[in-house]
Amino acid sequence: MDVLTTQTLSGVQMGIEVAGTVAFALSGVIEAARKKLDAVGVCAVASVAAFGGGTLRDVLLDRRPLFWIEHSWYLWTVLALCLTAMFLMRAKHFKPTEKSMQWPDALGLGLFAASGTVIALGMQMPALIAVLMGVITATFGGVLRDMVCNQIPTAFHDHRPYAVCAFAGGWVVVALHHLGWDPNAVVALGAVTATLLRLAALQFEWRLPSWKTED
Amino acid sequence: MDVLTTQTLSGVQMGIEVAGTVAFALSGVIEAARKKLDAVGVCAVASVAAFGGGTLRDVLLDRRPLFWIEHSWYLWTVLALCLTAMFLMRAKHFKPTEKSMQWPDALGLGLFAASGTVIALGMQMPALIAVLMGVITATFGGVLRDMVCNQIPTAFHDHRPYAVCAFAGGWVVVALHHLGWDPNAVVALGAVTATLLRLAALQFEWRLPSWKTED
Amino acid sequence: MDVLTTQTLSGVQMGIEVAGTVAFALSGVIEAARKKLDAVGVCAVASVAAFGGGTLRDVLLDRRPLFWIEHSWYLWTVLALCLTAMFLMRAKHFKPTEKSMQWPDALGLGLFAASGTVIALGMQMPALIAVLMGVITATFGGVLRDMVCNQIPTAFHDHRPYAVCAFAGGWVVVALHHLGWDPNAVVALGAVTATLLRLAALQFEWRLPSWKTED
Repeated sequence: MDVLTTQTLSGVQMGIEVAGTVAFALSGVIEAARKKLDAVGVCAVASVAAFGGGTLRDVLLDRRPLFWIEHSWYLWTVLALCLTAMFLMRAKHFKPTEKSMQWPDALGLGLFAASGTVIALGMQMPALIAVLMGVITATFGGVLRDMVCNQIPTAFHDHRPYAVCAFAGGWVVVALHHLGWDPNAVVALGAVTATLLRLAALQFEWRLPSWKTED
Repeated sequence: MDVLTTQTLSGVQMGIEVAGTVAFALSGVIEAARKKLDAVGVCAVASVAAFGGGTLRDVLLDRRPLFWIEHSWYLWTVLALCLTAMFLMRAKHFKPTEKSMQWPDALGLGLFAASGTVIALGMQMPALIAVLMGVITATFGGVLRDMVCNQIPTAFHDHRPYAVCAFAGGWVVVALHHLGWDPNAVVALGAVTATLLRLAALQFEWRLPSWKTED
Repeated sequence: MDVLTTQTLSGVQMGIEVAGTVAFALSGVIEAARKKLDAVGVCAVASVAAFGGGTLRDVLLDRRPLFWIEHSWYLWTVLALCLTAMFLMRAKHFKPTEKSMQWPDALGLGLFAASGTVIALGMQMPALIAVLMGVITATFGGVLRDMVCNQIPTAFHDHRPYAVCAFAGGWVVVALHHLGWDPNAVVALGAVTATLLRLAALQFEWRLPSWKTED
């Protein structure tokens, strides 16, 4: 990451970013397996899911070099993860289900929402833009993953709160940041808020308001 | 918008840009409602439709900060529009049809084609590139909207002139610009040309040449 | 292309880039015709197929101006190609098949993989990133073409080596580059490697490992 990010993200935050990347890459592997993509497709969809949101954020904010270009071990990590996951899935006849995607997804959602918001705040973005950058970081990996897999993005139509949780976590980050809290605590609390909200939404079957479908 | 744009776009042109944004956001809301997306999906598709074309233009031309990042009230406007539209649609059992999308679409098409071309001309782009940037500004919001909604972009397959109208409006802008006309008149005439062409195309059922389908 | 590229790409390499662009544009025309898109869709899909990979590479690496913006005759070439191809297809009742896309595709694959890798090496990118940029240049035109045409990218699910061939060609470029070979020879050998691998893969029906599908 560039000078700005090195200043913005501490070691703790870097660790959180890596965990989020792995979580999303795994969700990409599982989705690709469900679609019966080939090995190249698995690696590509996993990479899009893992790096897509952060890359879109950085392109929109004009931050360069991109984090996965400067730190190319990110790529090696995702590549190794894909090969390992493919091997395990083949060896153990593991059938990936939609449910198995929910946990890594919720974790990545919280982690990326918080780190994306902090990065944008570090560039002196206004609050709404910073929160939106967090939401984009957290959700557009999955949105692009679904677009590549030729389906309407789950985040946009399944009526269970997803981006909304990232949105809430982002505002927690903004609020604590303006209160002058320790940056590590800010990111951690923002991430925990978004992840817990997501898990609660799944557990208690919260629903977004929907269209009347009587027609 | 950056210094360049502040010089390029006058108040009149800014008003036109806002009107075009609202028109396209509305087309996104309607499309999202037809696909039964949830509230997040409606806001996302409306934003993609409203900001997608201009954002792609700015990324291709490397203009930063993006207009909706510098002027974040754009985002609040689209957000408010989405919530209002969703409320009205629920309250009044309004069933959005393809036909109801045509008017805001035609208006946005003309406005964005003209303003996109003027912006590129202001960056000393050659005529073809400037016109193409106008076409991208005008059509790729809709193209990305359709891609997110998992369908082949309407602009590419319905055989009714759409991008072609933006193309024509762009050349009007280029011609009047080289004749040294007043910038406001240039944008207004280019926008009117593209919009009227589009409405005429719909009214008189003009068709683009198509493949023979006897096979 | 910018100063860097002018230094990086010789006349031979420029010729190779043009040939690859034409090859991919043709694959876009054929795909658009199979989907019965209209004339605008044909030009758009051909342009996305021809310029998409290189544009994504340049956006990721922050290279500006984009090659097709600085050299706008690229656009005129693709536009003329589309009109000619559409005319011929209508006149001769030519029915494009999947098989007819394989040769231009294989050629473009090799050419873009090699030139993309060389460009990234010229920007002092590490080996893996450079090879990946070659793969992106070579494959994402096709990936975006398929996404616009609303299908899962062929490169990700047909189990025949495609991106893998570009990957191999990229490593040939990296190896010869580090051995200090003549740049033209480096590009030519990398391109030939990737193209021949692709043609061999099709001829001998090599398969990527696939998921067990007994479930």
